[in-house]
Amino acid sequence: MANHDLMRTTNTLEILKCVRDAGPLTKREIQARVGLSWGAVSNITGDLLRRGLLAECKRKETSVGRTPSIYEINGQRNLCIGLDINAEGITGVLTDLKCRSIKETRLNNLENTRAGILDQVGQVIQTLSADLAGRLIGIGVAMQGSVDAEHGVSVFSPYFPDWHNVPIKKLLEDEFGIQTRVEHDPNCMALAEQWLGVAREVKNVLFVRMTMGIGLSIMIDGRIYRGADGNAGEFGHIIMNPGGLRCTCGNYGCLEAYASGRSILARAMEGIRLGRCGGIEPPADGTELKLETIADAARQGHAYLAGLFEEAGSYLGIGLSSLVNILNPELIVIGGGLARFADLFLERAKAAAMDKVWKGCRVNLVLSSLPNNAAAIGAAGMIAQDVFAGSYPSLVG
Amino acid sequence: MANHDLMRTTNTLEILKCVRDAGPLTKREIQARVGLSWGAVSNITGDLLRRGLLAECKRKETSVGRTPSIYEINGQRNLCIGLDINAEGITGVLTDLKCRSIKETRLNNLENTRAGILDQVGQVIQTLSADLAGRLIGIGVAMQGSVDAEHGVSVFSPYFPDWHNVPIKKLLEDEFGIQTRVEHDPNCMALAEQWLGVAREVKNVLFVRMTMGIGLSIMIDGRIYRGADGNAGEFGHIIMNPGGLRCTCGNYGCLEAYASGRSILARAMEGIRLGRCGGIEPPADGTELKLETIADAARQGHAYLAGLFEEAGSYLGIGLSSLVNILNPELIVIGGGLARFADLFLERAKAAAMDKVWKGCRVNLVLSSLPNNAAAIGAAGMIAQDVFAGSYPSLVG
Repeated sequence: MANHDLMRTTNTLEILKCVRDAGPLTKREIQARVGLSWGAVSNITGDLLRRGLLAECKRKETSVGRTPSIYEINGQRNLCIGLDINAEGITGVLTDLKCRSIKETRLNNLENTRAGILDQVGQVIQTLSADLAGRLIGIGVAMQGSVDAEHGVSVFSPYFPDWHNVPIKKLLEDEFGIQTRVEHDPNCMALAEQWLGVAREVKNVLFVRMTMGIGLSIMIDGRIYRGADGNAGEFGHIIMNPGGLRCTCGNYGCLEAYASGRSILARAMEGIRLGRCGGIEPPADGTELKLETIADAARQGHAYLAGLFEEAGSYLGIGLSSLVNILNPELIVIGGGLARFADLFLERAKAAAMDKVWKGCRVNLVLSSLPNNAAAIGAAGMIAQDVFAGSYPSLVG
Repeated sequence: MANHDLMRTTNTLEILKCVRDAGPLTKREIQARVGLSWGAVSNITGDLLRRGLLAECKRKETSVGRTPSIYEINGQRNLCIGLDINAEGITGVLTDLKCRSIKETRLNNLENTRAGILDQVGQVIQTLSADLAGRLIGIGVAMQGSVDAEHGVSVFSPYFPDWHNVPIKKLLEDEFGIQTRVEHDPNCMALAEQWLGVAREVKNVLFVRMTMGIGLSIMIDGRIYRGADGNAGEFGHIIMNPGGLRCTCGNYGCLEAYASGRSILARAMEGIRLGRCGGIEPPADGTELKLETIADAARQGHAYLAGLFEEAGSYLGIGLSSLVNILNPELIVIGGGLARFADLFLERAKAAAMDKVWKGCRVNLVLSSLPNNAAAIGAAGMIAQDVFAGSYPSLVG
C-alpha cells in the first residue's frame, strides 16, 4: 500500500541520499535533483535538521546578496562502530554516516576462549565509544566462518576453538544497548569496495576474499545476495576436479584445495618433504612455515615455489571462469590477506579465466585498493546503509 | 521521487495483483487486503473496469439482500501471444492475463532459411490472432541460443544456419504493430514454473534446461537475473575437469561435454565404434542415432548405455553442487527434452550433488511438471507480468 506516510518517508530518504551523494547542497539544488515541491523540500530538510541527520553549513560565495543555507550530512552527530573479528585480532573503527573513519583501534593476540574474546570485543567498543561527540547509532560486526546475518549469530569460526552459535548481536545489544548487526566478512569487504574502493557505482560485483580459505560475496543490484539459507558464496568449495586433492571440508577437488593460502602452504611443506624446496625450511621454533617466506623465495626466483603460486592462480582463474559463466558480473574484486602476493598469481588467474569463459563474457578482475581495515569499515557502513534505507524509523520516520 | 501520480499507479497495480492472485473479490475484500481507503478502492476499481482490465461478475450468494459486485481479471478482453521457436518447430499459445491458455498451435518442420522461418513465425501469429475476442496486448518469444533481451534480438541460434542478430522484436512490431519481447528460453520456462509449475511462490529458483546443450535461468527475488551483459546462465560451460573432454564451444572439460544430450549421443556413437554397444546401431537411413533408442536400450538393461546416463547424472550433480555452493537457491527445477529420461540420471545427479555441497546447503532438486508448451506459456506470461508491473502505462497509468 502506498499512503502519505510512506510517501513522506520515501521522499525523506531520497533527500538524505541526495545530500549524502552530492552534498553540500542548497535547498534549491536539492529540489532540482529530487524533483519535489519547494514546500516538501523545506519541510523535510527542516525535519532532518531537527533530527540531527542534516547539518547547516555555509559555503563561501563571491557574489553579493544573501547566501543561501547549504546542507550536509551531520557527520559529527551520527556515528557507527565497525568491528572485524578474525584470527589475527580485532580491528575497530568509528565512522560517520558517510563511512569516513573518525577513530581506529587494533587489538592483536586474541584470547583462546569464547569468554576471553568477547571480553576483548567489549574493550574495543569501550575504546571507540569513549568521549563521543555525537550519538552512536549502531554497531556492525564482520566475522569469518559461517554467519547467520538475520539473527546476528556467528555460527562457527574456523579459528576459534569453543566458538559455536555465538549470539553476538544479542550479547552486544544487551551489554551496550546499541542496535547491532553481524555479517560475513566478505560481504563487509564488498560493501567497503562499493562505498570507498574499486567497486564504486558498480551494482553487480563479486568480492573474492583470498586468505587461508576462499570466501565470496555476491552483490546483486547493490545488495548482498545471501541465498535461501544464507549459505550463498561457498565458492571455495566448488569442485574443480572430481576425485582431486582432498579439501579441509572433507570433499575432494574443491577450489580451496588448489588456490588458497592453506593449499599453497600444504604444497610447500610437501615440497620440503620431497626435497624440492632447497633453501627454505619450516621455522626451527616449531611454528608454521609462513606464506611470506614462500613468497619471498618465489620472488627471488625459486621455480618450484613460484610454480605453486602460479598453479594456484590457474585454478583460481578456472574457478572464476565458472563464476563468470554463471553470474556474468560487472566486476570481480580480489582481496584478503593472500592479495598481497597477487604479483605471483593474478596474471595467471586472469589468463586462465579469459581462456575458459563463454564467448562474449567479460572478465573484469581487479585487486582491492582498500587497506586492512576494509572489513571493519564495511561493517560500520552497514549501519549507515540501514539509516539511508529507512531501517531506523526513529531517525527518518 | 514519490508523488501522487506514482502513488496512484502503485495502488492501481496493487489492486490489480490482489485481484489476480486472490480474485474474484468484492470491493470490501480488496480493501481489506490492500489496506486502502474505500474511496481509493472504489475509484481505482472503477477506472480498471473502464480500461477493461477488471470485469464485474456475480458470485452466487445464499443470503438475502443485495449481492455486492465482485471483480475478476478481465480474461476475455486482454490477451497475450507466446511463441517458442526452436530446432523442433514453433509452439504458439494465446493466453489471458493469468497465463491461462486459450488457444494453441504447433508448426513442425521449420524452413531452412531465416526468411522462411520468419514467414512461419508470422503464420503462427496469424493463426493465434484470428477471430480474437479481446485486444492483443503483446507477443512474447522464447529463443534458444544467445538472446539480447533488452533489444529483442536473437543473437544466434545453434540450430538455424543463417540466423545471426535477428531483430525479432522490431520485425514483429513492424509487421503486427504489437509490442513484442524476446527472451532466452530457460528464462521463459522458469517463469512458467513460477506461475503454473513446481516453483509457485518460490522467489529464488534455478531452472536448468537439459536438451542437446544445458541452459540455466537464474531467478532472484522473483525476477530474471541476466548479469552485466545479459550472459548470465552459461552453466553448460563451467569447467568440470580442466583438460577434460572437448566441448562444442572449443574448451575442454565443460559440463556440457559430460552431461548433455549431445554428450550422451557422442559417447554412445563412440561405444558403437568400440564395439561396446551390442544391440544398437545408428539408423540405416543415415540419420542420427536418437536419444530415445539409447534410453530404451538402457532401460532394458544395457549396462554400457545405462552407464552413460548415470555418468551424465554424476557430472550434472557435481555441476549442480557448484551452483548450490555459489547461489544457495531455494529450488532447482530440471526441465527440457532430456528430462523425459530423468529416470536414468536424476537420482545419480541428486546423490552426487548432495555428496559435494557445502555442509548445511540444501539440494532441492525437482523435475518440471509442465508440458512441452512451457516455454511458449512463459513467453506469453512475460507480457502479462509486464502489465502487472506497470510497463503498459496506457493500460494502468
